[in-house]
Amino acid sequence: MPTTELVAQISNYMNSQVPFQQLLGLEITQFSGQQSEVRFRWKNELIGNMPQRILHGGVTSTALDTAGGAVVIASLVERLAGKASVEEIMQKVAKCGTIDLRVDYLRPGRGEEFICTATIIRSGNKVAVARMEMHNEEGEHIAFGTGTYLVG
Amino acid sequence: MPTTELVAQISNYMNSQVPFQQLLGLEITQFSGQQSEVRFRWKNELIGNMPQRILHGGVTSTALDTAGGAVVIASLVERLAGKASVEEIMQKVAKCGTIDLRVDYLRPGRGEEFICTATIIRSGNKVAVARMEMHNEEGEHIAFGTGTYLVG
Amino acid sequence: MPTTELVAQISNYMNSQVPFQQLLGLEITQFSGQQSEVRFRWKNELIGNMPQRILHGGVTSTALDTAGGAVVIASLVERLAGKASVEEIMQKVAKCGTIDLRVDYLRPGRGEEFICTATIIRSGNKVAVARMEMHNEEGEHIAFGTGTYLVG
Amino acid sequence: MPTTELVAQISNYMNSQVPFQQLLGLEITQFSGQQSEVRFRWKNELIGNMPQRILHGGVTSTALDTAGGAVVIASLVERLAGKASVEEIMQKVAKCGTIDLRVDYLRPGRGEEFICTATIIRSGNKVAVARMEMHNEEGEHIAFGTGTYLVG
Repeated sequence: MPTTELVAQISNYMNSQVPFQQLLGLEITQFSGQQSEVRFRWKNELIGNMPQRILHGGVTSTALDTAGGAVVIASLVERLAGKASVEEIMQKVAKCGTIDLRVDYLRPGRGEEFICTATIIRSGNKVAVARMEMHNEEGEHIAFGTGTYLVG
Repeated sequence: MPTTELVAQISNYMNSQVPFQQLLGLEITQFSGQQSEVRFRWKNELIGNMPQRILHGGVTSTALDTAGGAVVIASLVERLAGKASVEEIMQKVAKCGTIDLRVDYLRPGRGEEFICTATIIRSGNKVAVARMEMHNEEGEHIAFGTGTYLVG
Repeated sequence: MPTTELVAQISNYMNSQVPFQQLLGLEITQFSGQQSEVRFRWKNELIGNMPQRILHGGVTSTALDTAGGAVVIASLVERLAGKASVEEIMQKVAKCGTIDLRVDYLRPGRGEEFICTATIIRSGNKVAVARMEMHNEEGEHIAFGTGTYLVG
Repeated sequence: MPTTELVAQISNYMNSQVPFQQLLGLEITQFSGQQSEVRFRWKNELIGNMPQRILHGGVTSTALDTAGGAVVIASLVERLAGKASVEEIMQKVAKCGTIDLRVDYLRPGRGEEFICTATIIRSGNKVAVARMEMHNEEGEHIAFGTGTYLVG
C-alpha cells in the first residue's frame, strides 16, 4: 500500500472510530508528520464556565492532545511505510500514548471554530515531543500545549 | 448565609450547570478547601483508544482539572464566606480559571469508576496551585496532575 | 528617571548582583518587555554528563528561568515607569518570582555559547507566562521552556 | 560484581565526577530505585534574589532534576545488575537523560540545608517518570518536581 493511502486510511480511522473525539466533534483535518491539524466548532455542550460562556479547559486540552498525538502517529507511519507490514504499523500505532501533557491557557476559549496545530520538536524511536497551539477562527491565540508521547 | 450552605449551593451549581462536566458524567462528590473529589463512571463515549479500550487522555485531563478547580474554588469560598456578599463571592468564582495544567499519565485508563482527588499545595490571593490524582475503583493509580489557577 | 535609564539600571543590577547568575556566567544581554535574552559561554564547571561532555540540565533550566524572569520584570518596569516611584517599582520587582517552570530538552547541550530568548505569552497584573528557547552559537535548538511568574 | 557494590560505585562516580553537581555542592545521599535523595547546604553563591536572600530557582530545579535522575539510574542499574556487563550498564547509564522537567515553587528557598527526595511513578524500558520534593532542614516544603527521563 502506498504511504499516502495508508496515511489517509489511518486518518479516516481516527476521525470515525474514536468515540471521545466524536463526542466533542473534533476532526483531524491535516495528518502529516510535518504538521497536523485538528478543528472543531463551538457547541454549548463544550462550555465550562456558563456565566462567561467559555470552553471548558478540558476541551482545549483534549483538542491539543489529539493534535499532538496525530503528528506523532503520522510521523511514525511515514517512517515505517514500506518498511513494515500494515499490521505491524497498526500495532505500533495502537501502542502510542501520551506520557505527559502541559497546557498553557492564554485567553478565554471563545469563538465559532477552533483550530489546533501540532509540530514535532523532538523525535525519536522511543519518545517524541510535540508542541501545539490553539487559535479561534479570528486568529486569537487561545492556548499552547506541549506533549511527550511514547512511540509504539 | 452560613458557609456550609453557600458551599453546598456552589457545589450543586457546578454539578448541574456546567455542560461539559455533564457531557462526561463528572460529579463533584467532595467540595472543600481541604480536599475536593470528582467521580465518574466508565462510558464507551469516553474511549480514546478503541483497540485497547482505554479512556481518552482528554477525559483524564478534564477530570483532573475539574477536581483542581473545585478545591481552589472551595478554598476561596471558605475564605470569603461571612466577609463578602454572596454576589461578590460568585463574581470572584466566575473569574477563577486555569493558567496551566500538567498531566502525567501513569497507567492505561481502564476501570468501572474513576476517582480524582485534589489538594492545594500553594495558596495565595492571586494564584493557587493544586495537585491531583486519579485512581480507578480498584485503587490503581492512573494519573497525576498539577494545575496553576488564577484566583478570581 | 526616564524609563530607559531605569530599565538599564535594573538590568545592570541583575547582571552584577545575583550571585547564582554570576556563578554560571549568565548575562542578560537584552532586557525588554518585548523580548529578553540571556547568554553564557561553555565552561567545564557546567558539565552534567562527563562521558558525553554535555551541559547539566540544571544549567539549561537556570538560563531559561533567568530569561523568562527578565522579560516579565522588564515588562513590569516598562508598565510602571512614570506611574510609580523607583522605590515602589523596585519593591514590586523584588516580589516577582517563578510559580512553575517546564523545560523540554530537545538536543544535548553542546556548543561554545548559548543564547536564551524569552517572550511573554500571557500578561496580567497578577501572573505572567513566558515562553523561552535556548540555542547554541550554531543555531541548534537545545531546549524549550515555559514559565509562569508571579508579578510582584 | 555484586549489585550493591556496583550501585555504590556509580553513586560515588556521580558524587565526584559531575562538575555542575560539585559546583553547587549537591551530594547524592541515597541512591536506590526505591527512593533517592540529594542534599546540599546553603551557600551565598546560590542566591537568586538578594533583597530577600532566597535560592535561585535554578538551584532548586537542578537539585530536583539530580534527585530524579538518580532514582531513574539506580532503578536501571538494579534491573540490569547480573544480567549485563558493567560496561554495558555504564553505557546505558551514560545515555539516560531528562526529556522534560516541571518544577512547582511553593515557598521561598530559605534554610541551612536542603533535602530532595525522588521516587518513580512510571517505570518502563524506554521512559521513566519521577516525582520529586524539596524540603529544608526544618521540614518546610519548598518545591515539587516531576521529570520524564529517557532510559538509556
